Parts: sequence; structure tokens; C-alpha cells
Amino acid sequence: MRKIGLREVEDIALGASLLGAGGGGDPYYGKLMAIGAIKENGPVELISPDEVPDDAVIMPIAMMGAPTVLCEKGTGGGEYKVIYDMVSQYLGRQVYAVMPMEAGGVNSMLPIAAAARLGLPMVDCDGMGRAFPELQMVTFTIGGVSATPMALTDEKGNSVIFNTITNKWTEELARAVTMSCGGSVTVSLYVMEGRTMKAFGVKGIVTRSEMLGRAIREVKNHPEKTPEQAFLDASEGYGIFKGKIADVLRETNGKFNLGRVQLEGIGEWRGHRAEVCFQNENIYASVDGEILATVPDLVCLVDTDTFIPVTTEALKYGKRVLVVGLKCYEMWRTAEGLELVCPRYFGVDTDYIPIEERVKGGAANV
Amino acid sequence: MRKIGLREVEDIALGASLLGAGGGGDPYYGKLMAIGAIKENGPVELISPDEVPDDAVIMPIAMMGAPTVLCEKGTGGGEYKVIYDMVSQYLGRQVYAVMPMEAGGVNSMLPIAAAARLGLPMVDCDGMGRAFPELQMVTFTIGGVSATPMALTDEKGNSVIFNTITNKWTEELARAVTMSCGGSVTVSLYVMEGRTMKAFGVKGIVTRSEMLGRAIREVKNHPEKTPEQAFLDASEGYGIFKGKIADVLRETNGKFNLGRVQLEGIGEWRGHRAEVCFQNENIYASVDGEILATVPDLVCLVDTDTFIPVTTEALKYGKRVLVVGLKCYEMWRTAEGLELVCPRYFGVDTDYIPIEERVKGGAANV
Repeated sequence: MRKIGLREVEDIALGASLLGAGGGGDPYYGKLMAIGAIKENGPVELISPDEVPDDAVIMPIAMMGAPTVLCEKGTGGGEYKVIYDMVSQYLGRQVYAVMPMEAGGVNSMLPIAAAARLGLPMVDCDGMGRAFPELQMVTFTIGGVSATPMALTDEKGNSVIFNTITNKWTEELARAVTMSCGGSVTVSLYVMEGRTMKAFGVKGIVTRSEMLGRAIREVKNHPEKTPEQAFLDASEGYGIFKGKIADVLRETNGKFNLGRVQLEGIGEWRGHRAEVCFQNENIYASVDGEILATVPDLVCLVDTDTFIPVTTEALKYGKRVLVVGLKCYEMWRTAEGLELVCPRYFGVDTDYIPIEERVKGGAANV
Repeated sequence: MRKIGLREVEDIALGASLLGAGGGGDPYYGKLMAIGAIKENGPVELISPDEVPDDAVIMPIAMMGAPTVLCEKGTGGGEYKVIYDMVSQYLGRQVYAVMPMEAGGVNSMLPIAAAARLGLPMVDCDGMGRAFPELQMVTFTIGGVSATPMALTDEKGNSVIFNTITNKWTEELARAVTMSCGGSVTVSLYVMEGRTMKAFGVKGIVTRSEMLGRAIREVKNHPEKTPEQAFLDASEGYGIFKGKIADVLRETNGKFNLGRVQLEGIGEWRGHRAEVCFQNENIYASVDGEILATVPDLVCLVDTDTFIPVTTEALKYGKRVLVVGLKCYEMWRTAEGLELVCPRYFGVDTDYIPIEERVKGGAANV
């Protein structure tokens, strides 16, 4: 057990924006919520998965919908208590701790706000190790865990409990309600016991996020190497391309932000042109027509100077970015994992090949 | 208390198709479900509102969505048990009886099927006295009763419990889930105690439906008057127009069946041309440009020969119909009632004037 205070929140938020892989929403607004909750209620206890009893009830907390909507309409602050009451009343059991389900993006922060407001510890574990656009895309689905009973509430006070036959149906029904509630709601899903969390969760992800955030902040404090090398070393990232944003094409299908960003090389690295496609998160990156990284590995864009991650909302013409690939959590590379999040699921006609193999023969500067 | 067997079901279904005012779905498919449930489990006990203890829990049963979808995809039969378990577990109380919420159309029949399968009595009461397209359009909304907790389940086994801040929000969220579930689901809403049912319900509506059905069936057994007069007497209906269908215009906005039917007079009654507009149910009828009946009064089309009600789905060129207006339940005529179901809510730019006043100076044959 250790305490998560204001400094830790800053680092976790920064690391979470890298784990967001372009999506998951800028953690900035979530950070304000976490900071507000900690200032009112004191630091949050972060407990390691091992500290959780096998039969303790863990209540993951997340927002569902569009992070940009969350920024505009906000939350009422009372949602976590509503969710807590719904879950504990429905199960007839006490909740032991909260947990993030999605360590990337804004959903890294809301469980901290919830833990502070509810006076509960938060477990150092999530179900993605990154951000993904649909709720069945979690390691717990691989483990056969049901997303339901799922509790949902909006800032107005409407609340819904779902029980579905598959996690894809949870996604379908909860997404419909989320849209009707205005595009952003607070949820608890994959409520589980400690033993399940330990068996299928991405353990230590909050600490990893914090470490990544600190590394980005301190990237220039290494006299023995370039900031770029320091960043790649700390993130264990594979450099894919370095370039200037030449064009950003965006569309929305009502559910997701879709688009592609085109980059022109700036001479320092190999390759002339690169393209990164996104569906909320970045889906793949190609250099001179050759795909060098795909989901479920993380395709991240970071500022070439500050190494601060650039979310898809913040893409704009002329910005200089480094395209970096990070290995995904190992469970995503199994057949069961790829069934949920392979490139083809996102409409990209290629098999999944791990980033470390793709970049080996490719154009990347590794 | 009296028994509802196969004969009663036939009459109630026929009467319910008149109370459907063109919408609510043809009770035919619901009738098959009620008959099947009665054949398997025996007749249903119909109890009068007075027989219900004030603190007994009443569970209204209905389908939500498009009746035409219900006919195609059907129900699994197990939905009523799922709903029963959800409601009694959620409330932590025993359910005393089921009840229809919408006596018009297919929803007249499903509570009979539910009562038979669950071994519960059914109360002779509903919340509309007719059919309406949205779930907040019930007398219980006038009484300030919440539609939630509302239980919803589909034939696949997905289930949802809603708690909302207003009944309009229940409509919004439950409609979204209904669409996602394929367009037709089984629900319980406005779960209430006996005292509430007695205060705001449309009492005796099942018996009225049965009486109307029997009257239609026996319309030719009155040597002293014409079948037409026998029908108008028994239904207490106001004859508005008699004509041949000249055109039917249909559209759908995804949620409702919208349209209008144009009629040409066939000489026996006053008026040359008439038009009936519908949004699931018939909204208003005009003769030679003059509106003679509007919601919330019932605008019904019946076959000129058999007096069997013609639902909007069954409208077709050349069919001869009688347009009849029936007085709505008195509570709909109050300011609170009209706030929910006035003509303007349905997009018709006219005040509500009771049918008996409209036809007085109008073209109708009364």
C-alpha cells in the first residue's frame, strides 16, 4: 500500500496519456476531478493486487462515451456514490476497493476521484494496459468474466443496471443508453472478486503509468543520452517515424472518432511519408506504405521536443511528432486476445505481427 | 374475481383492437400467446381493483417496441419469469398480481399470458384506456407515479433495470435499449401498490374491452336496428365518416409508424373526403378539411360490413371503412392529462376539443 497524492496524480495522468495510444481522452479533465477529490478527501491508498483478499469485491470505475463530451458537460460528483449504492445493493455485498478498467486516457483518473470520494482503496491493476474503444475489449473477457451486472449513471441522476448474455451485448446496450444520456456517463462494469482480478488483470499498470509520466517529465535530465533516447529507453518504445503533420482527415460515425493523420519525414529518420489511422485510439502506423505497428500494440504520437503524448483531438498541421510503438500486454497476443482486438476487427486487412518483429525488417529507426 | 378462459380472450382481443385506435399492434399474435399460456396453465383470475389490498405490489406487463417486430421475432416464453424475478428481487417484495398498462392492441394480451404462466391474478385496470405510443403517456404519470424501477428483458436473455428522474427519461432510455435489442422487448413499468392503482388507473377496462368485443361479434343479432347502429350504440361511438380508402401514405422515423389515410365518401353519409393521420395510433380525423376528432379521444376505423377494427398496418386501397370517435378516459381531458397527450404533442396544430363538441356542429352523422 502506498499513497496517491497530487504529485503522483500528475505523473499518472501524463503516463496515462501515453498509454491512451492517441485515444481514451486527454486525462487533463479527469486529472482535475482526481485533484479536486483528493484535495477534499485526502490522498488515495493504492494497493497492490496481492493485498486484495480472494473473495473481496472489486468495483472498476470508468466513464463511457466521448471524453470530449465529458469535458463539456462534466460530472456531478455524486455519481460514484450512486454507482457504489447500486452495486452494493444489487450484490448484497460490501465493496472492498475500486480499480481502473482502462489505464489509458481519462479513465486512469476517474477511479482515483472515486476512491477519494468513497474512502476506498484503489487496486494497481486494469483490464487493458492501454485504452480501447469498446467495453468488451478487456483481458477479463478473455478470462470469460462477465461485464455485468453493470451499473451506469448520468450526471442528471438517471441510473441503469444491465445484465447481458455476452460482453458484446453489454457494449451494445450500454452504448445506446450512453448516447441517449448525452454521450458521457459514469459506469462500473466487470465487478469481480479479488481472485478474478489477480488471474486476468494487467497488474501494476498504475505504477507503470506513473513511471512513464515521471520519465517524460525527466527526459532531459540524462546528460549521458539524448532526450529522445531517454524517452525510448524509459518507455521501452520502438521508434517508428519522425515527421511533421501534413494532413489530418477526420470523420465520425456517431460512435467513434475515425480518421488518419499523414506525416512527412523531417530527414532525421528513415522514411519519407507515414500514416497513422485511428478509431478513437491509433490503430496502425505505416511508413512509405509498409505497416510497422498495429493494434493491440500501442501506436503513440509524442511531441518531438517535450515527448508529451499527442492525442488524436490535438493533431494539427505542422506539428512535429515522433511515432512510437509500445508492446501491448502479453494476454492480447494470445489467440483469445486477438479475437477481440486484432487489426481486422478494426477494419485493417493485415494479420497481427508483434511490433518487435515488424520493425526488425522495416524502415524504422530502432 | 372471475375467470378469463379462451372465449373471454377472443372477446377481449377483439375489443382491444378497437381500443387500439388503429395502433398498439394487431392483438392477433398476442392472442396466440395468451391462448397458449392458458392452454398450458389454465384460465386466469381477473380481479377487480377493489379486491386488491392497498399495500399489495402490482406488476404491469407490456411489450415495448414495434408490434410488427414482435410478430416476426416472437418471445421466448421465459421473459415473464425473468421480469418477475427482477422486480421481486429488486424490491425485496412479493408481487401480488399483474396488470395491463395499455388495454389497446397487443398489450391487452401479454399480461394475460404472463398471469397464466406466473400463476398470478390479473387486475381489471390499465393506465391508458386505449393505446398510446410513448410510455410516459399513462394516467399514472398524471398521478406523479414513477415509471421506474422498470424491468426490461429480451427473448435472448439480456435484461436491464432503469431508474430515471422523469418518465420521459424512462421512455428515452428504454426506447434506446429496445431498438438495440432488435425492436421489441418485454417490460414491467409503473410497478405500484394497490392504493396507487386504485387512485389513478382506468378501472374495469378489461371488462369493457371484452364487452366491446362481444358487441362487435354480435352486431348482426339485433333485428330492431341496423348493425351499424348496433355497433355505435354498443361502443358509444360517434360516427364521423364512411368511405373508401383512396390512398395510404406511410413513412417511418425509426421510432414510429407515421402516415395518413385518405378516404372518399361513398354517398351514404355527409362529407366528400376525409383524412386520418396516425403516429402508431390514429391522431385525428378530418372531413372536408374540418377536424372532427383528435387525440386523446379515440379515432378508430372499422370495416363497414364486419365492424372489425382496421389497424394502421391493415389499411389498403379500396377498403370500405367507418371512422368512429370514442370518448377517452376522463383523466386525459384534464390539464395534466392534455399536457401529455394533447394534439400539439403529436404535431397537430389545434387545441383539444372533446369529440362530442366537435361533432355537434360538424359534418358527422350523429
